Amino acid sequence: MKYMQEALEEAKKAYALGEVPIGAVLVFQGKVIARAHNCTEKTNNASCHAELLCLQEGARLLGNWRLNGATLFSTLEPCPMCAGAMIHFRLGTLIYGALDLRCGAVKSWMPILQTSHPIHQVQIEGGVLADESATLMRNFFKERRLEEYARNI
Amino acid sequence: MKYMQEALEEAKKAYALGEVPIGAVLVFQGKVIARAHNCTEKTNNASCHAELLCLQEGARLLGNWRLNGATLFSTLEPCPMCAGAMIHFRLGTLIYGALDLRCGAVKSWMPILQTSHPIHQVQIEGGVLADESATLMRNFFKERRLEEYARNI
Repeated sequence: MKYMQEALEEAKKAYALGEVPIGAVLVFQGKVIARAHNCTEKTNNASCHAELLCLQEGARLLGNWRLNGATLFSTLEPCPMCAGAMIHFRLGTLIYGALDLRCGAVKSWMPILQTSHPIHQVQIEGGVLADESATLMRNFFKERRLEEYARNI
Repeated sequence: MKYMQEALEEAKKAYALGEVPIGAVLVFQGKVIARAHNCTEKTNNASCHAELLCLQEGARLLGNWRLNGATLFSTLEPCPMCAGAMIHFRLGTLIYGALDLRCGAVKSWMPILQTSHPIHQVQIEGGVLADESATLMRNFFKERRLEEYARNI
C-alpha cells in the first residue's frame, strides 16, 4: 500500500502538469530506487511512460539491466510497450492499480503478461488502490472533454 | 528494398559490436530521418532496440510524436515493446524482414499489430529481404553458442 501510495503521488504530479495521471515507483531491497510519471507531452516523446522510465532509471542505478529482484508499482495496468519492456528488463514483480480496459496488456486488451513467454515471466498482482487510480484517470479525462467542449462553443 | 538494405547495414554494425544484429531506418517524405541498431549491451539499457530508438529520434527531429506519415523499415518482426511503441507514436507503416518466431509481436508470439487497436492501426508488410536478416541472426547466435562452448571446455 505504502509504495502504491507513492506511485499515486507521482500520478498526481502528472495530473497537475496536464499529463495523463499515471505514476510508478521501482522498489529494490526495500528501497524506492526510481520514481516517475507520464510526461509524453512535455518531452514530445510518446514512449515516456512512468513504467518504462522507472525500468530505465533502475537499470542505470544498479548498473544492470536485469531487474529480477525488483518490484514495480504502477497505478494502472501497463500498455503493451511497457509490458514488453518489463520482460526485456527481467522485472521480478509488477503490482498495479486500476485496469486499463481499452489498452491494458496484462489481460484487458492483450494478455502479454498473462501469457507464457519463452524468456521471462513477470509475477503480477493487480487491483491495489485501484479506486484512487481510476478516479484520477476519470477526472482527468472529464476535465479534458470539458475544455474541448468549452473551446468549441 | 533500398531502405531495407540500409536497415540491414545497421544490423551489421550491431553484429560487429557484439549486439543482437537488428537494424531499422525511419523514412519520412522519401528521406531517412533516423537510423539505429540494437545497443542494449553497450548502453546497459534493455529498451535500446533499433525500432524504439528510430521512433524517438524521428519524433524529436520532426518536433511531433505523431508519425502518421512515416514508414519504419526493420530487419526483424518487432517485439511487444517496440510494437506497442509504434502504436503510441502513431506510426503510419511498418515494413519488416524476417519473422521472430519466438517473441515476435506482429503475429508470431503475440498478435499486437495484427489485432484491431482502439486508438491506432499500423499498416504492415513483412518478409522484405527476410533471408538476409535471418542469416545474420542465425550466424550471430551460432557464434555466441560456440564462444560459450569454448569457455566451458
